[in-house]
Amino acid sequence: MTEPPEHLRQLRRELHRHPEPGWREFYTTARILEAIERIGVDDIFVGSDALASDARIGIPDDEELARWRERASEAGVAKATLEQLDGGHTGAIAVLRRGEGPTVGLRVDIDALPRRESTAPDHRPVAEGFRPDHDDAMHACGHDAHATIGVGVLEAIGDSDFEGTLKVIFQPAEEVIGGGRAIAESGHLDDVDALLAIHIGLDHPTGEVVAGIEGMFAVANFRAEFAGASAHAGGHPDHGANAVQAMTTAVQNLYAIPRHTDGATRVNAGSVGGGSASNVIPESAYIEGEVRGGTTDLREYMRERAETVIQSAAEMHDCEVSVEWGAQAPSADPDPELRRLVYDVAGGVDGVDSRLERAQLGGSEDATFLMRRVQEAGGQATFVGIGTDHPGGHHTATFDVDETSIGIGVDVLTEAILAISEQEF
Amino acid sequence: MTEPPEHLRQLRRELHRHPEPGWREFYTTARILEAIERIGVDDIFVGSDALASDARIGIPDDEELARWRERASEAGVAKATLEQLDGGHTGAIAVLRRGEGPTVGLRVDIDALPRRESTAPDHRPVAEGFRPDHDDAMHACGHDAHATIGVGVLEAIGDSDFEGTLKVIFQPAEEVIGGGRAIAESGHLDDVDALLAIHIGLDHPTGEVVAGIEGMFAVANFRAEFAGASAHAGGHPDHGANAVQAMTTAVQNLYAIPRHTDGATRVNAGSVGGGSASNVIPESAYIEGEVRGGTTDLREYMRERAETVIQSAAEMHDCEVSVEWGAQAPSADPDPELRRLVYDVAGGVDGVDSRLERAQLGGSEDATFLMRRVQEAGGQATFVGIGTDHPGGHHTATFDVDETSIGIGVDVLTEAILAISEQEF
Amino acid sequence: MTEPPEHLRQLRRELHRHPEPGWREFYTTARILEAIERIGVDDIFVGSDALASDARIGIPDDEELARWRERASEAGVAKATLEQLDGGHTGAIAVLRRGEGPTVGLRVDIDALPRRESTAPDHRPVAEGFRPDHDDAMHACGHDAHATIGVGVLEAIGDSDFEGTLKVIFQPAEEVIGGGRAIAESGHLDDVDALLAIHIGLDHPTGEVVAGIEGMFAVANFRAEFAGASAHAGGHPDHGANAVQAMTTAVQNLYAIPRHTDGATRVNAGSVGGGSASNVIPESAYIEGEVRGGTTDLREYMRERAETVIQSAAEMHDCEVSVEWGAQAPSADPDPELRRLVYDVAGGVDGVDSRLERAQLGGSEDATFLMRRVQEAGGQATFVGIGTDHPGGHHTATFDVDETSIGIGVDVLTEAILAISEQEF
Amino acid sequence: MTEPPEHLRQLRRELHRHPEPGWREFYTTARILEAIERIGVDDIFVGSDALASDARIGIPDDEELARWRERASEAGVAKATLEQLDGGHTGAIAVLRRGEGPTVGLRVDIDALPRRESTAPDHRPVAEGFRPDHDDAMHACGHDAHATIGVGVLEAIGDSDFEGTLKVIFQPAEEVIGGGRAIAESGHLDDVDALLAIHIGLDHPTGEVVAGIEGMFAVANFRAEFAGASAHAGGHPDHGANAVQAMTTAVQNLYAIPRHTDGATRVNAGSVGGGSASNVIPESAYIEGEVRGGTTDLREYMRERAETVIQSAAEMHDCEVSVEWGAQAPSADPDPELRRLVYDVAGGVDGVDSRLERAQLGGSEDATFLMRRVQEAGGQATFVGIGTDHPGGHHTATFDVDETSIGIGVDVLTEAILAISEQEF
Repeated sequence: MTEPPEHLRQLRRELHRHPEPGWREFYTTARILEAIERIGVDDIFVGSDALASDARIGIPDDEELARWRERASEAGVAKATLEQLDGGHTGAIAVLRRGEGPTVGLRVDIDALPRRESTAPDHRPVAEGFRPDHDDAMHACGHDAHATIGVGVLEAIGDSDFEGTLKVIFQPAEEVIGGGRAIAESGHLDDVDALLAIHIGLDHPTGEVVAGIEGMFAVANFRAEFAGASAHAGGHPDHGANAVQAMTTAVQNLYAIPRHTDGATRVNAGSVGGGSASNVIPESAYIEGEVRGGTTDLREYMRERAETVIQSAAEMHDCEVSVEWGAQAPSADPDPELRRLVYDVAGGVDGVDSRLERAQLGGSEDATFLMRRVQEAGGQATFVGIGTDHPGGHHTATFDVDETSIGIGVDVLTEAILAISEQEF
Repeated sequence: MTEPPEHLRQLRRELHRHPEPGWREFYTTARILEAIERIGVDDIFVGSDALASDARIGIPDDEELARWRERASEAGVAKATLEQLDGGHTGAIAVLRRGEGPTVGLRVDIDALPRRESTAPDHRPVAEGFRPDHDDAMHACGHDAHATIGVGVLEAIGDSDFEGTLKVIFQPAEEVIGGGRAIAESGHLDDVDALLAIHIGLDHPTGEVVAGIEGMFAVANFRAEFAGASAHAGGHPDHGANAVQAMTTAVQNLYAIPRHTDGATRVNAGSVGGGSASNVIPESAYIEGEVRGGTTDLREYMRERAETVIQSAAEMHDCEVSVEWGAQAPSADPDPELRRLVYDVAGGVDGVDSRLERAQLGGSEDATFLMRRVQEAGGQATFVGIGTDHPGGHHTATFDVDETSIGIGVDVLTEAILAISEQEF
Repeated sequence: MTEPPEHLRQLRRELHRHPEPGWREFYTTARILEAIERIGVDDIFVGSDALASDARIGIPDDEELARWRERASEAGVAKATLEQLDGGHTGAIAVLRRGEGPTVGLRVDIDALPRRESTAPDHRPVAEGFRPDHDDAMHACGHDAHATIGVGVLEAIGDSDFEGTLKVIFQPAEEVIGGGRAIAESGHLDDVDALLAIHIGLDHPTGEVVAGIEGMFAVANFRAEFAGASAHAGGHPDHGANAVQAMTTAVQNLYAIPRHTDGATRVNAGSVGGGSASNVIPESAYIEGEVRGGTTDLREYMRERAETVIQSAAEMHDCEVSVEWGAQAPSADPDPELRRLVYDVAGGVDGVDSRLERAQLGGSEDATFLMRRVQEAGGQATFVGIGTDHPGGHHTATFDVDETSIGIGVDVLTEAILAISEQEF
Repeated sequence: MTEPPEHLRQLRRELHRHPEPGWREFYTTARILEAIERIGVDDIFVGSDALASDARIGIPDDEELARWRERASEAGVAKATLEQLDGGHTGAIAVLRRGEGPTVGLRVDIDALPRRESTAPDHRPVAEGFRPDHDDAMHACGHDAHATIGVGVLEAIGDSDFEGTLKVIFQPAEEVIGGGRAIAESGHLDDVDALLAIHIGLDHPTGEVVAGIEGMFAVANFRAEFAGASAHAGGHPDHGANAVQAMTTAVQNLYAIPRHTDGATRVNAGSVGGGSASNVIPESAYIEGEVRGGTTDLREYMRERAETVIQSAAEMHDCEVSVEWGAQAPSADPDPELRRLVYDVAGGVDGVDSRLERAQLGGSEDATFLMRRVQEAGGQATFVGIGTDHPGGHHTATFDVDETSIGIGVDVLTEAILAISEQEF
């Protein structure tokens, strides 16, 4: 197929209309479960049955969880389902068992980003009525399409003469690098012979497929909280310890951490804030940020420098600071053999007019946790790119996917899984 | 008296438990109205009858107003009262008419600050159970005491043989410099012969009275909004225009605006924020801040420099910025004659053990709008300081007043008003 | 007189043509000695006889001293004189003893600033041929006029019927706050009953005299040296420890030290530098700066904050830093009685058309060391301002004095000294 | 050979003792000429005969040139030689003509860096007495060894049965990217069939040879001059326009220019300064720096961002700024065929125990001008790395070469030139 069937397009649009950031994917998981149940599978693991609960990172507080759960409830999710997902245990793993043969994993992620989506009239979700009602989240990285491809592949393999076991992993909380480790440590991957993880877009156009994306940045997230002392800004400016001065000094110097000899590094102060009122010397401030490196060592270089910058900036302004390093992911590279298989298969798929055996990702992905788990147990893994024409960049307000690429993605992955089932492992 | 009567103490504590920032003083106004009605006065002007509605500054949006109105409603404020205050028309003016004699104005402000109050067990509002239930506002500058003194004076003058007219002005939104001009332009001050404005504390201990506080900073508030472009922080850091870098560059340089030859200046980036997620180059950021000067010229110097800093910081990072200058207040000085009257009267009041004829305020006050209005029409004005032992500084989490000073304040002002009524104007 | 006699004008211009920064006043001292000898006095103390040698601050290194000594030699200063001034022992004290009577001190300073003078054709020193030949120093604060006034007063008192002792102190190194303490601790002030220190200009026009300048900032100078590690800027940017990043972070935050409740503060990074070549990560950098405060406490506040800023900035960039606090001066205030005497006397001097009993100085002066010394021993002191029309501001390239004011200065001070000699001390 | 002959070791050490930065290589050129004359060659082009004079970049002013010329004179360079090099026309090209055969170019650079060399007792130039007497320059990048290798190869080829033409180019001013273009445009390269450029060290150990170094950064140097207004730092801080604040704001933000998607970027504020005295608001400041990119486009990205940062920083502090972009170099890559020839030859050279066909340079080199010139005319070029154990990093105070590598370098290049002479071009 080149165009996805209408029910997959509808699924993608429903998910798009209900974007939910990491660990809040109540509606999303419910909607996926509904689709899986319609298909019929051998096993469904939901929430705490799919995850190593303690390995989850970045769980929101109860109030936040309650707010999103309530929203899902208003969108029609059944109470029983919500109870299965309680405490931010979102995501699911669907299993098809079809006789003897290798165990293949397909990992798709399902979470959205906490940002506002464009309201421009020519933004397709606006024009065609599937922009979310709320402004606090957006599928700005195509995970709505990923989840849809996962469902589509399950369906296609279910209808095929596949022999072996297929596990489709609907992973929550990729954007906060929060879910990958919890899936990796769940046990569900321990018998996987071949793992396919996917991503749509990444500046590759519709019709282009990348068999093995490499160069995934190692990444680590942090939250720094600066604590100073407030004072009346007019009367007693010297009585305060200005946490916003500390924070801004840190931000300026974080971006100025020296480039590294050995390769690419990144740093971002992605969300910052501080202070209360214009006439009060700010007593608190925070930075939520991340560092990345082309290798784990480069990430560690950035982490150490960032620590030093933040600590010194706090001292400079008589503030205390605590830095919590949260989610992080290692790097991982595709296995050449599996990558080659995908490359070969893609050549025969309708709608694929360009194939790359390898390409660089300028980002990070906690799929690396899953890939490493499989590779360490002797299996193979690759990270497949499915091109899509996207009008705005990833993570921006006008991001959107070309839905044709959903059909192409389903076909490429289905054919790859069938080809794998004919291999020796 | 030295200690305030129990009902005034109770009033102050109820107001303290329900702190409401500027234009949100629904509960506060209602509670004051209730107290005034109990006393019995000749006229009460409420909300839009007390204010020049268009001269108000810093009105919150409807959602915010609705939230506080709802909270007041839950605290028992009658629907009819809330309707009088609709659209952020808070505050009131109570008038006593007692025959021939001068018209005296007493101005007290009633709003709270948007900050969290201490939960330390030895913080008296905690220990004695009148800390607010919510964490989003606090009477951290003693306006609960001001309002209480206003009620106490009304009561005391009502019971006295005062001859003349007394207007007690319960002004909203002082902290955001939002209400002073609206009162000044309401017309209610145009026949006032002598205006007393008050403030408690200011590092003067209980028992000390300042007859005329001078040196009030001219002040102007601003909000700067930086708009850049988001991008994936790992994949495309150069595609973004980082609004947080622009904002932090501005903050660093705002605090570094050169000191001025001619006197004191201040600047504060009191509330800042920006960005969305750690892996997105921030596309927006803001600063809410203020500049002050010992004179209006000094404030203008700071304003111009601040504009330049903010604009250049935006350009540096390829961002757009809009700067909106909001509330501002001029400076004003006490009239020596009226100041002397207060000084003389205070000498005879129980509990007053230290008198200063003049002292400097290192802050700003939109009472200056009222003082100037009265002075320009030929009347006199002074700004009286009522000392109070306060454990934490103004605007900090542990600020509190010594309630004894409420009694002293009522007595000093009552005696001053009686003395004024015996003057020629 | 209103205009100075021609030989004083010539003296001033010769000094102006040979500006010498602190402790390098070889030509200047020699030229003053020559003038004194022509007048004839009872005692001349030169160099180490005029100073507490160990109390001098900011002595340049031998190479620098040799360079200026060589320049003085080329300008015709005799070898014997240079030997008297060896090791930066510049300056002199001339003493006239005329029978019984009080001991009066007159302190003038003689050093120049290390800056380039304007070459604009309409700058009078250019137009009339007395701009210095070199670009590395300039009399940009009028000390050439001060020294000339000192000589003029010595001459005038010598010719008068003055009874008592006059000590005219030609102090070196005021600009670096380096000479005041060395004079104060020399012993020469210990019998002084009345001390007059002077300054020309300070935005007061020709014809205006200030009897007592007050509000002199306490000041402290520092030099911070940052030491990092160099590296190839292209090949190994992460191998370095960038001392220029440390220094610039410090400078940004020094200027942003919070303003203080209690009064005026100042900070300046007056001279900075760092690095070597564009392709080398800078391994060293420095700041030469100063902090000031309206009181000694305010200066100490600034000093402590500056220390913290500098230390933290170094740590932030993995650098070491040493901060040396050099010259400093306290504050001092005029004695009202002596101030009044000067005020009264000035009223009778030709050319004085405006008198101020007091005015604020927005700067610092190490005359405060001398004033305090005299005051502590029971004498009186004042700091007299002699107005002069100056086209450019103090310390700028176009500063110049109106020479008329030299004549006025000589007359005011001569009359004041004669009046003092008639007082009881 | 593995060890160089004693006369080459001596030559290297004499050059090391007399380090001269770009266009000041008077002693260096003279010493090289002396060695060449001893060998005997067919042509020697010196100074303006070797260079396109107008294409030189970064010529020092006359005073600076005179100072170094004087120093060379004191070190014994003949007046006639100095006249040949007048006006900074340093460097030379030596030509051997030996019958029919290809024309081979060998380019070595000869300049030093303007930095101080270590005085540590265990630093070999100290221990063995060839550290320079002056502290203002150092051979911290091994160009003393490069020049020596050039001489050694000339000698060895002269003694061989080489057929063809050899041009050894002793290029001045590589460190300031100042000489490459002047050589490239001199005409001497226009008949070169194969060009070998070399560099020693670069973190490759003694015994390792890199046949083709690639990935040379495109680079551009700049000098930014900030002009503000001075003022007295105590009296009139607001009257100034602080050029040091502008400069430090620029430096902070230069280092914080976002990393780029497409590859490596660099920026360095390698030399900065500003201000005059601690009590004067700085009226001027400068940055001498550079930007680099893995490609010319990346360098242009950095250049544009740097321009914006610098201009905005000046505006922010009411200063003017002029930015002059000086020397720059493109990138260039080795020709695979010539690279392979060097790789093959190196395998047979004594002392070579490790060969790399290619490696990345994390720096820039204006040899790229020469390589491009030859390549554009149809010739081939490569950039050969000769490993050397170096105790300190390039451009640091403890850099030194292992002299064994000089012998290896001579042999590898001699063998390569002989092999080239047997090729068809």
